[in-house]
Amino acid sequence: TKQYRITLLPGDGIGPEIMAVTVEVLKVVGKQHKIEFAFEEALIGGAAIDATGEPLPAKTLEICRSSDAVLLAAIGGYKWDNLPRQQRPETGLLALRGGLNLFANLRPATILPQLIDASTLKREVVEGVDIMVVRELTGGIYFGQPKGIFETETGEKRGVNTMAYTESEIDRIAKIGFETAQKRRGKLCSVDKANVLDVSQLWRDRVTAMAANYPNVELTHLYVDNAAMQLVRAPKQFDTIVTGNLFGDILSDAAAMLTGSIGMLPSASLGLDGLGVFEPVHGSAPDIAGQDQANPLAQILSAAMMLRYGLNEPEAATKIEQAVIKVLDQGYRTGDIMSAGMKAVGCREMGEVLIKVL
Amino acid sequence: TKQYRITLLPGDGIGPEIMAVTVEVLKVVGKQHKIEFAFEEALIGGAAIDATGEPLPAKTLEICRSSDAVLLAAIGGYKWDNLPRQQRPETGLLALRGGLNLFANLRPATILPQLIDASTLKREVVEGVDIMVVRELTGGIYFGQPKGIFETETGEKRGVNTMAYTESEIDRIAKIGFETAQKRRGKLCSVDKANVLDVSQLWRDRVTAMAANYPNVELTHLYVDNAAMQLVRAPKQFDTIVTGNLFGDILSDAAAMLTGSIGMLPSASLGLDGLGVFEPVHGSAPDIAGQDQANPLAQILSAAMMLRYGLNEPEAATKIEQAVIKVLDQGYRTGDIMSAGMKAVGCREMGEVLIKVL
Ligand SMILES: CC(C)[C@H](C(=O)O)[C@@H](O)C(=O)O
Ligand SMILES: CC(C)[C@H](C(=O)O)[C@@H](O)C(=O)O
Repeated sequence: TKQYRITLLPGDGIGPEIMAVTVEVLKVVGKQHKIEFAFEEALIGGAAIDATGEPLPAKTLEICRSSDAVLLAAIGGYKWDNLPRQQRPETGLLALRGGLNLFANLRPATILPQLIDASTLKREVVEGVDIMVVRELTGGIYFGQPKGIFETETGEKRGVNTMAYTESEIDRIAKIGFETAQKRRGKLCSVDKANVLDVSQLWRDRVTAMAANYPNVELTHLYVDNAAMQLVRAPKQFDTIVTGNLFGDILSDAAAMLTGSIGMLPSASLGLDGLGVFEPVHGSAPDIAGQDQANPLAQILSAAMMLRYGLNEPEAATKIEQAVIKVLDQGYRTGDIMSAGMKAVGCREMGEVLIKVL
Repeated sequence: TKQYRITLLPGDGIGPEIMAVTVEVLKVVGKQHKIEFAFEEALIGGAAIDATGEPLPAKTLEICRSSDAVLLAAIGGYKWDNLPRQQRPETGLLALRGGLNLFANLRPATILPQLIDASTLKREVVEGVDIMVVRELTGGIYFGQPKGIFETETGEKRGVNTMAYTESEIDRIAKIGFETAQKRRGKLCSVDKANVLDVSQLWRDRVTAMAANYPNVELTHLYVDNAAMQLVRAPKQFDTIVTGNLFGDILSDAAAMLTGSIGMLPSASLGLDGLGVFEPVHGSAPDIAGQDQANPLAQILSAAMMLRYGLNEPEAATKIEQAVIKVLDQGYRTGDIMSAGMKAVGCREMGEVLIKVL
């Protein structure tokens, strides 16, 4: 029996509900694959602010560091929206990414045949879409210095942020981009704004130079505005996309929305030393929190990503992924993906039918 | 008879073709409305690089400044893509925007009933979409200092750009945003990334403060990643969007692509002193240049925007806009918007049928 220490960060809104269901699923799969999980819960986001005044207590970071993988649900809510930025839930998330050196964020946008009609795009445009966005997560304008609100000579305020990348920061994420493309369909599209930004020019030069090491990967470049257009115009042209922190934030959300079922999408954030954080793409949905209405499948698929990328347990991961397909085939749907003729279930019941399938 | 001096900047690729057709249209409409145009052509982009070595010769800026309005076609092409940034066509465009203080860029994304099937989105999602993106055009990360590629202490290179806005820069574009919304359906959505960026926090604070002066405008805020999602999910929720330079670049292109017919979309860039530059949203399309295949309608509609916003000649503007609708109703289509059962025409012929309708 293998043993893993998993940190659970349920966070805010629907977080605790979808996390609870996911833990049950992990226990069942663990038994089947001779894996023992030791779960430890820690505070982040609004829940942490309420309990300790800080969105990421030092203790949480410590617990994460001493574990084998971190499963995060979602953070944030109206309640904390008007606090100063240093005390907001999002700041806790950024501190977690920085604190664990999670420089590589993998965000798949795959369209499931069962849910294709949930897309706002025409069936023929999105059928078969399977995009992986590799987003740099600990650099760029999210962390660049100087930043702040300063007073100018004329006495007016000036807000400032700095978009910066060093060669080594670009190289390490580009490497993940090429390797990811290699394991997929061999196409990598690097997205930047090199016709305007110096930082993008350096980005493009480094990515281009690295292509020589990956002769079996076809590298292309797109400006970010054109990439946003192409995602809408012809998303099937994309396999793997690699891009910086801000562009990745925008494009991965646009790509996720193409599928029409953002409640189904997991993500992985990987660090230097093999420690990863796994979380759904969707947010904390405070409007439906505590009502047993949330879709737990993105969280459950995040647990599958954890098994695959974080713990190197691909069989257990596949087991979960296949079970998710099966419950969809059986017609079970939470409210966000409900359509005519399907069986409406709540969060807990979705977990139960999934465990039955397992 | 009124007289206006118009600077023509045909630029590169299909630019000269669509400009030639548009000038013919303007002449006809001018006669009908007792308007005399004195056209003067000047160099920009690749054409200017080839002739003078610079993408925006001082002479061009001078001619623009002494005219009543500037009509620009498109710039850029493969030929100049590998020059150093200072000598690239795009740099000429940025210098024009900076040199003429064109801080407000208006980019409509309207779906025409005749072309609705060209959209990749489902008819019910895009039917009636009518969005105006008000993009700040002379500030933000496009112009912020410091910028460049610097050497760090460890000897590696670091690319840097600065996203910065002062209060007065925010105020003047916010004002255009509110006024535009007021003339439309009274809804303004300000887009930023205030949960992460200091510059966005200042942006949000100023826009929020200004709302008190416009009690009849309903102001909302969205983070840029969410805005990109909402444009795909439910574009009809938007009326007017106001945002910074980079976010506006990305979102206006995504919004344009929702319509499926980017070859139809004009834009206006307005300065402090009433001088405006009017240009299509689409690019220079070097692959079809010189083949009489280009769609001139976005350029022609840009001339209509020039009449309306630049010269205060709304009747002549409306005349052109109605004629465009009419040729579409009559079934004339260039290749980019062609569909079964319609009459295929080239660039020049599209101009001819439009003049017949006028
Ligand atoms: C909540 C926010 C800070 C975060 C980001 O911008 O990275 C979110 O949008 C995401 O994409 O994970
Ligand atoms: C060509 C480029 C510099 C320009 C921009 O980024 O502003 C273009 O994309 C646009 O939107 O007009």
